Amino acid sequence: MREVKVSLFGFGNVGRAVARVLVEKGRLFRERYGVSLKVVSIADTSGVVWLPEGIDLRGALLIKETFGRLSSWTNDYEVYNFTPEEAVREIDADVIVDVTNDRNAHSWHLTALREGRAIVTSNKPPLAFHYAELMGEAEKRGIPYLFEATVMAGTPIIGLLRENLLGDTVERIEVVLNATTTFILSRMEMGLEFEGALRQAQKLGIAERDPSGDILGIDAGYKATILHCVAFEPITFNEVNVKGIAEITRGEVQRARAKGKTIRLIATVERGEVTVRPMEVPLGSPLAVESHENAAVIWTDLLGKMVVKGAGAGPKETVSGVVSDIMKASLKLKAG
Amino acid sequence: MREVKVSLFGFGNVGRAVARVLVEKGRLFRERYGVSLKVVSIADTSGVVWLPEGIDLRGALLIKETFGRLSSWTNDYEVYNFTPEEAVREIDADVIVDVTNDRNAHSWHLTALREGRAIVTSNKPPLAFHYAELMGEAEKRGIPYLFEATVMAGTPIIGLLRENLLGDTVERIEVVLNATTTFILSRMEMGLEFEGALRQAQKLGIAERDPSGDILGIDAGYKATILHCVAFEPITFNEVNVKGIAEITRGEVQRARAKGKTIRLIATVERGEVTVRPMEVPLGSPLAVESHENAAVIWTDLLGKMVVKGAGAGPKETVSGVVSDIMKASLKLKAG
Repeated sequence: MREVKVSLFGFGNVGRAVARVLVEKGRLFRERYGVSLKVVSIADTSGVVWLPEGIDLRGALLIKETFGRLSSWTNDYEVYNFTPEEAVREIDADVIVDVTNDRNAHSWHLTALREGRAIVTSNKPPLAFHYAELMGEAEKRGIPYLFEATVMAGTPIIGLLRENLLGDTVERIEVVLNATTTFILSRMEMGLEFEGALRQAQKLGIAERDPSGDILGIDAGYKATILHCVAFEPITFNEVNVKGIAEITRGEVQRARAKGKTIRLIATVERGEVTVRPMEVPLGSPLAVESHENAAVIWTDLLGKMVVKGAGAGPKETVSGVVSDIMKASLKLKAG
Repeated sequence: MREVKVSLFGFGNVGRAVARVLVEKGRLFRERYGVSLKVVSIADTSGVVWLPEGIDLRGALLIKETFGRLSSWTNDYEVYNFTPEEAVREIDADVIVDVTNDRNAHSWHLTALREGRAIVTSNKPPLAFHYAELMGEAEKRGIPYLFEATVMAGTPIIGLLRENLLGDTVERIEVVLNATTTFILSRMEMGLEFEGALRQAQKLGIAERDPSGDILGIDAGYKATILHCVAFEPITFNEVNVKGIAEITRGEVQRARAKGKTIRLIATVERGEVTVRPMEVPLGSPLAVESHENAAVIWTDLLGKMVVKGAGAGPKETVSGVVSDIMKASLKLKAG
């Protein structure tokens, strides 16, 4: 049995779902993989709870859900005011799990890699702006840097492109990467104007209060950038052409429908060229997704065309990718 | 640069396509992976060509295509009359590639593993009847035993289930695994009776002269057995319930169509229970495939439902899986 020490950064919806899966499936993972995961620290915006012997995850969930912040847990645990930078230096962990929204996380990812710690992340900006540097550091040191959950939640398109199809040359990917825009466009097909559809998405918690990341195509752009890095070569988000759905009218959506088509926010990824824009796709196409599904069509020289379709959002669905990556990193540590 | 010695067993359509890809993409693989593949032997039913310094693949392709058998190559090469058993013992290779139809290959696969050689195979019966023994031997020795091309050609469903979704528990897989039956059923939808549709498939080279493996569901049953072994636990083909399409009538096919459905040969894989049988699926379903596509719907506890769809047959499409596995094995050898 290999014991793997995990530092968890971020204890929002996704972070708590990670903790819940580790509680519920810890025994299964020990049996299935011979790996025992021990969470030695959890950080939220209020502070860092750290215990080298391993944190009681049920307790952490209870505190967070009751008081809204980990720093209320002063009866049982010391709470530290580390910056992430300090935390990845101080805390002895094998795997760093970043489920934060920290836009500047790349600097502490680099520090963690230099400390010899594997990284599992669902946080997109570090990869969308610093892929070459981060991956260069990880490869130089032979340390896993894993990010399945950054694109299509746990639907394993990253694993598929990074670790499979190794003899193929990818020619082109067309993909729906953002579920919020799909929701809004679907509601516009039912007759709402853009503003009304957006308000409905916000009321249901599907769009954020500041919805610009989704509706301007930035979220999809980050993900498309990451796909290009994996399928072709490193680029940054600054090189990507992005057009969101804010200018789409109900009339356009309904005219498309009348032609047997549907407008979706489509990313097209080819070598050296990434475009995100609303496009008409035929209703029978794999890209004519509904609800929280994402879908990718991948063309390669040997295989021809293949399709991957699955959840693109949701805490449990995101955790599927995060936990798979934690196990991947752990198995690598176990073997090496 | 790591040099990896490959022994190729089988030089039919798939074996020759492997050789062609290694010729065309060898330089790319050296640049991309730092791996140089050297084919040290090729076996067809006429004999084994063996040269430790590496065989000229263009020459081998020319001889085979001109004379129909490798044993005609006596000007340049020694041709040996090894059994596969002898060949895997005698020939110093890192990776054995089995693209034969040898139903008894499991015995020489075991020998090869015991000699410390990695195996890449597209040959189904060894896995459908001896998965536990073969995988046990491979795991005990830490040697790659890879079989992406046995199920859905190169569409990476095996890699997806074996090396991704590691935190998920698979609950159920529904999958179309045989393209010949799809072709026959499609022709019956157009008005042909079963016999006529089968003859057309044979004329086009889609069905074999003895079509029983396809139409009785045996080929799909082998593949479904392998999926069960990977997603759940080892079983053998003898434990699988298989019903083919030979008793389906044109009337049934057309009545389904009138209801907005289509009959396809569907494998259902759940823990301890594998069934292959013709079923009605709605026309909008991912399982309502056409032509040479296969499709799988996978349900798991965390991710919910995902779909993988892609080529299920064809030499190039099969070679996609074989060559990806050769690179996987080579990268493992390089790292280890």
